[in-house]
Amino acid sequence: MKITVLGAGMVGRAIATDLAKQYDVTVYDISNENLGLIDTSVIIKIQSDLTQYEHYQDMLADADIVVCAVPGFMGYETLQQIIRCKKNVVDISFFPEDALALNNLARENNVTAIVDCGVAPGMSNLILGYYDGKMKIDNFLCMVGGLPKERIKPFEYKAPFSPIDVIEEYTRPARYVQNGHIITRPALSDAVLIDFHKAGTLESFNTDGLRSIMFTMPHIPNMKEKTLRYPGHIDLMKALIKAGFLSTTPLLCRGNEVKPIDFTAALLFEQWKLQPGEKEFTIMQIILEGTMKEKKTRIEYFLYDEYDTKTNVSSMSRTTGYTCTAAVNLVANNLFNEKGIFPPELVARQPGCFEFILNYLAERNVQYKKIVREY
Amino acid sequence: MKITVLGAGMVGRAIATDLAKQYDVTVYDISNENLGLIDTSVIIKIQSDLTQYEHYQDMLADADIVVCAVPGFMGYETLQQIIRCKKNVVDISFFPEDALALNNLARENNVTAIVDCGVAPGMSNLILGYYDGKMKIDNFLCMVGGLPKERIKPFEYKAPFSPIDVIEEYTRPARYVQNGHIITRPALSDAVLIDFHKAGTLESFNTDGLRSIMFTMPHIPNMKEKTLRYPGHIDLMKALIKAGFLSTTPLLCRGNEVKPIDFTAALLFEQWKLQPGEKEFTIMQIILEGTMKEKKTRIEYFLYDEYDTKTNVSSMSRTTGYTCTAAVNLVANNLFNEKGIFPPELVARQPGCFEFILNYLAERNVQYKKIVREY
Repeated sequence: MKITVLGAGMVGRAIATDLAKQYDVTVYDISNENLGLIDTSVIIKIQSDLTQYEHYQDMLADADIVVCAVPGFMGYETLQQIIRCKKNVVDISFFPEDALALNNLARENNVTAIVDCGVAPGMSNLILGYYDGKMKIDNFLCMVGGLPKERIKPFEYKAPFSPIDVIEEYTRPARYVQNGHIITRPALSDAVLIDFHKAGTLESFNTDGLRSIMFTMPHIPNMKEKTLRYPGHIDLMKALIKAGFLSTTPLLCRGNEVKPIDFTAALLFEQWKLQPGEKEFTIMQIILEGTMKEKKTRIEYFLYDEYDTKTNVSSMSRTTGYTCTAAVNLVANNLFNEKGIFPPELVARQPGCFEFILNYLAERNVQYKKIVREY
Repeated sequence: MKITVLGAGMVGRAIATDLAKQYDVTVYDISNENLGLIDTSVIIKIQSDLTQYEHYQDMLADADIVVCAVPGFMGYETLQQIIRCKKNVVDISFFPEDALALNNLARENNVTAIVDCGVAPGMSNLILGYYDGKMKIDNFLCMVGGLPKERIKPFEYKAPFSPIDVIEEYTRPARYVQNGHIITRPALSDAVLIDFHKAGTLESFNTDGLRSIMFTMPHIPNMKEKTLRYPGHIDLMKALIKAGFLSTTPLLCRGNEVKPIDFTAALLFEQWKLQPGEKEFTIMQIILEGTMKEKKTRIEYFLYDEYDTKTNVSSMSRTTGYTCTAAVNLVANNLFNEKGIFPPELVARQPGCFEFILNYLAERNVQYKKIVREY
């Protein structure tokens, strides 16, 4: 079976390497540097500008499944073009547009498209979707963060993605669902300190991360996604925002106009760069509260995953990328073959899919710990 | 008597206006906007580039006393040129160079030059110099700050001077004297919270503000100058410095090289600008500890001075400018006529000078409160 991976960033590379153990893999990226970091010779690497959509028909002609791992800003258009080529696809580009708008196009082209299939969004949606068929859920809470092991002041943060995407997350108002209503709160609001196993005290704050489940799970009255950082990071980011460092209004600086957000993004790009081999971890806690078999039940999934020093694959690549490759295997093995756009919570409805993905991740040492409490 | 004021910035304007009540005053500045803000018609205002030193002989020909109130970066050269013109001068430009290097030049030209004659340096030196003749001083501590009444996050600060001068103060290592040795400490070090009458809790930290007294007062074993800000300001500045926002190494920002310090200074210039009529205050606490008449004695001078809503003259202008105009009157009235360079601590040795200045300030409602404790 032939699989084409579009995008050879940190996560795209981990995806390609994992899939190459079983499949014929071809990877496309505009950057030869990115392609060069893939160190297995069985993968075909092709430098290509992936915004040249007119080449997609030829490019994807003999692919059985496509993985869309391009940057978010071009994700939606790329996904649309893959669907037009009638190719089954798993997407982790996390674009800002609504993927479900492509549902009819996917059906017309007889395509299975699984979107948002990383760790969060991704596993968080799978867990929610799986239990939504088994219990009446009153509360869903997802807290998630990717953090460096070494805490260096003042930010104590390294970005596993582009800093500009992180800044976007810090400036876009956050939506959550409360008593059945969508509530919009300011970016970085409701910061709370919480003690976590292994990670210690972290600060949680609102981010606009619910995405598809705000619309696919209208019967769940309370749903919240919060991001985790080391304490103090959010206060500093708030101060920078208030002081104007992320403003888009140009500032005159020695005769030249400079947009503060451009300058700050450039500075943070240096500050927040994960160094080669730098240890980091992913932490996620998902809490479902509701009624199962007439009993008040609380189900928790906890993930604490570190950089793999044997394979030198970062935790963020592993937790995100292997959820994606698990989904590729669902499609390859015909375990999931519905046609249309499917965020993970809808994939999890199909019997066996959630268990398959959990097992697939466990085989790669991405271990979710489940704790069930009944009242 | 004719007095020429070089520089019509915020403090220069207050000086000119105060002196114009008694003397014929001419003010020079490169900025017509600055000159236009002087609203008395008895002052002669002349637009002129004060770095054109070849014009000084003509410009200062009929001046009896000159006030040097130019920006710090050009202060030393300006003072030197005034001395070469054989004019008595009072300086508040607070230049970084060592004024005492001009002592011989001043003597040769038969000039009285009083330098650093503001609030701190200025009154702090006068108080130290006065008591140095009356007691054996073991400890000298000066804490001083100019702050806005309205505290706006994140900086809770407005700069009465150029932000670049404030940044200089935040980045230059600070020197103090301990057990007779000059100690160099990092900028912004030793931050401590202290409760002040009227101003509430402020944060004090080391600044390199001792200037001349490190050398004119070698017999005093402990001397320290600290600057005051609202709590949290220093932590935020430390974070900005650590993150590289004040670095002088250019950063590539959308294809253009931008020096972080230039960008940040431009941004802070907007953030830290005192608005017309904005209420601010000056706070200074000077503590002298030692032995007077064989008794352990602690002498404290405390200043808390606010923006004058009647005259619309800022507190920083009044406390700095009127110390300067008091010194001009010392010279004009022949109360101080020694030849050479005199920082204020040396002026205060001359009987009557300190009392004259204190009275002069009190008449303008700049009130120092003195508290003496004997053990």
